[in-house]
Amino acid sequence: MPVNLAPPDSSSLLAVAGIELGWAEAGIRKPGRKDLLILRIGAGASVAGVFTRNRFCAAPVIICREHLAAGGEIRALVVNTGNANAGTGTAGLADARAICGEAARLLGIASEQVLPFSTGVIMEPLPVQRLLAGLPQANQRLAPAHWGEAAESIMTTDTMPKAASRRTVIDGRPIAVTGIAKGAGMIRPNMATMLGFIATDAAVTPVLWRELTRQVADASFNRITVDGDTSTNDSLILIATGASGIAPITSADDPRLTTLRAALLEVAQQLAQAIVRDGEGATKFIEIVVEGAGTVDEASRVAYSIAHSPLVKTAFFASDPNLGRILAAVGNAGIGDLDQRRVQLHLNDVWVARDGGRHPQYREQDGQRVMRGSEIKVRVELGRGAASAIVWTCDLSHEYVSINADYRS
Amino acid sequence: MPVNLAPPDSSSLLAVAGIELGWAEAGIRKPGRKDLLILRIGAGASVAGVFTRNRFCAAPVIICREHLAAGGEIRALVVNTGNANAGTGTAGLADARAICGEAARLLGIASEQVLPFSTGVIMEPLPVQRLLAGLPQANQRLAPAHWGEAAESIMTTDTMPKAASRRTVIDGRPIAVTGIAKGAGMIRPNMATMLGFIATDAAVTPVLWRELTRQVADASFNRITVDGDTSTNDSLILIATGASGIAPITSADDPRLTTLRAALLEVAQQLAQAIVRDGEGATKFIEIVVEGAGTVDEASRVAYSIAHSPLVKTAFFASDPNLGRILAAVGNAGIGDLDQRRVQLHLNDVWVARDGGRHPQYREQDGQRVMRGSEIKVRVELGRGAASAIVWTCDLSHEYVSINADYRS
Repeated sequence: MPVNLAPPDSSSLLAVAGIELGWAEAGIRKPGRKDLLILRIGAGASVAGVFTRNRFCAAPVIICREHLAAGGEIRALVVNTGNANAGTGTAGLADARAICGEAARLLGIASEQVLPFSTGVIMEPLPVQRLLAGLPQANQRLAPAHWGEAAESIMTTDTMPKAASRRTVIDGRPIAVTGIAKGAGMIRPNMATMLGFIATDAAVTPVLWRELTRQVADASFNRITVDGDTSTNDSLILIATGASGIAPITSADDPRLTTLRAALLEVAQQLAQAIVRDGEGATKFIEIVVEGAGTVDEASRVAYSIAHSPLVKTAFFASDPNLGRILAAVGNAGIGDLDQRRVQLHLNDVWVARDGGRHPQYREQDGQRVMRGSEIKVRVELGRGAASAIVWTCDLSHEYVSINADYRS
Repeated sequence: MPVNLAPPDSSSLLAVAGIELGWAEAGIRKPGRKDLLILRIGAGASVAGVFTRNRFCAAPVIICREHLAAGGEIRALVVNTGNANAGTGTAGLADARAICGEAARLLGIASEQVLPFSTGVIMEPLPVQRLLAGLPQANQRLAPAHWGEAAESIMTTDTMPKAASRRTVIDGRPIAVTGIAKGAGMIRPNMATMLGFIATDAAVTPVLWRELTRQVADASFNRITVDGDTSTNDSLILIATGASGIAPITSADDPRLTTLRAALLEVAQQLAQAIVRDGEGATKFIEIVVEGAGTVDEASRVAYSIAHSPLVKTAFFASDPNLGRILAAVGNAGIGDLDQRRVQLHLNDVWVARDGGRHPQYREQDGQRVMRGSEIKVRVELGRGAASAIVWTCDLSHEYVSINADYRS
């Protein structure tokens, strides 16, 4: 049961000039479900990507990096669900290349202009023939209005599709930002991968776009965690088609970049948070803010230490204000010279720990009240400096174990 | 249900000359259970400790470090269960000092010669009056034969006491090594802490003993993990009373040290593994061996990345040979230049992944057979060098969530 998350209203998803989407039911893992997507990109777009840091990255991730590094113009994404093409060795690489080749042939572009993405079961051979057979159908369906269907076609066992749109205005013209994503934390048995694809019709030069993509990723998808497991396939792609006709943004000092960044970040954060809200077995959405750190890295480490502690996560699940566990996680973050006597802990509006110990006025019933809610904000003040970090996560429930322990069937 | 673990046979626990143990039922958290222990140490012993790296360490850990650093002769340990005296600020420190003072008064020694230990609920005030009132009773019970009762008196919600003994021979004399421990991974709601106390009547100089204690810890208690949460109170104390009358071991080159180290390590590893076998909700005991690493640190990081992956742990629970998850955890260990094409994965006698991909001869039924067992050995070969590391862990079950999500009651 996702936490305070509704399916996207397809009519609210803005088409992005220069982007067309088409899906197929290729029967990759199960028949009768959308499992293949082509996202076609018009000429002249800037395309940038951020990929998993997992060194056991999947074949399509390797190919994506190759094709982006080659520097040619990217003109299409091809995404399949049902199989991650990870842990598949040289055969997996050949399969991913074959898909790029066939998509390129259909679209009349070069193979290096295609980026492939896969999500699903790990360490099983990709059913490449079924994928190749499905591509013509996806190609025939290409149309700008298909964002809602596209969101469905990349789901593994997300309980609902994830899509978001924003309209902004640059140079007096309407600019669309629309994105889709699928769930993190290996949502179901064998189903690996966070995928996110966000497009805008704004125009930004490639170098600046790569920098902006990194910034957006760091403030959205890189701020979430379900279970701390980084998948083999995580990929985020940002596309600026330039089809709105505005003059290209070429400088980091251009005030129009601030406007665009804000819209991109809203879409990216909504999608990233949707992934957490639909996290495996999630019953609560938790925002962890760490302030007063010496560095941003230090703040992040503390936030992730809290977010990844199974004991903290099970306490949230149980609505148990067993908040010493949060202090223990703070102490466990690897900050060698942390002075616990300077640490403050707040839960929503409740001051739980003052100067490293239980606050004298703290009453368990106040902690209990906050813990019963479905949206909880943990705020830790370290008393070491002015740096801060934020992380979004969910609780650890029985359902998480059930989901991940179910035999693959 | 502990995994292949039987309660210790009290008659098999060897008394250690120079050590006496006495317990009390102090009613710290619940009436009618052993919850307070004094371990008295004869004059002339070497005592060394290894403590949690958690920076939110508990008051007794702070006092232990103080008293050991002061360099005086340690003559007693006082241990309570039911309350961890962690996250308790300056009041907690005062409470721990009061306990040392009262124990010292009863035993006719100085306060700085006492090491205090607490385990139990975090961030709740220590019921220090009940502790103080229980000390005389524990003092009256001091006797060399009480190792079994001592093991019981430090349990929180371990499902069984943990104790082990070995007899070895040095200079033709029998030497005893006996130890007790209590469970890791914050075994039950709020119950923090791994504690281990091991004593021998061998004689070793203090400097050498400190080095030996570090070596034994690194090869036993520092090789286990249940859920990756390092508690605020973890402590391991090794005591060499010298009461056997052998000439003191003063040099690292003394061959007698090898004999003693082997016996200590056997006891320490048995206790450490008992903690994993009695881990929260454990249904399987898993040994993870990483070989062919560039450095021991690298090997350790890979082993812990596997041991801490919730996805790997739930797959073990489900007996699901979903072994791509292990490869993903290897890739997730933060080794930047790992070449996945050199990675081999074995599960017991089954070669699962060869050169980074599924082994062509691997059959799911062979993986299934191994996964159904209660003792599983994961062996990963990285192909980078000659360093190796070992970690012992357990699976992640529904029961883990139940145990940790139960409201404190």
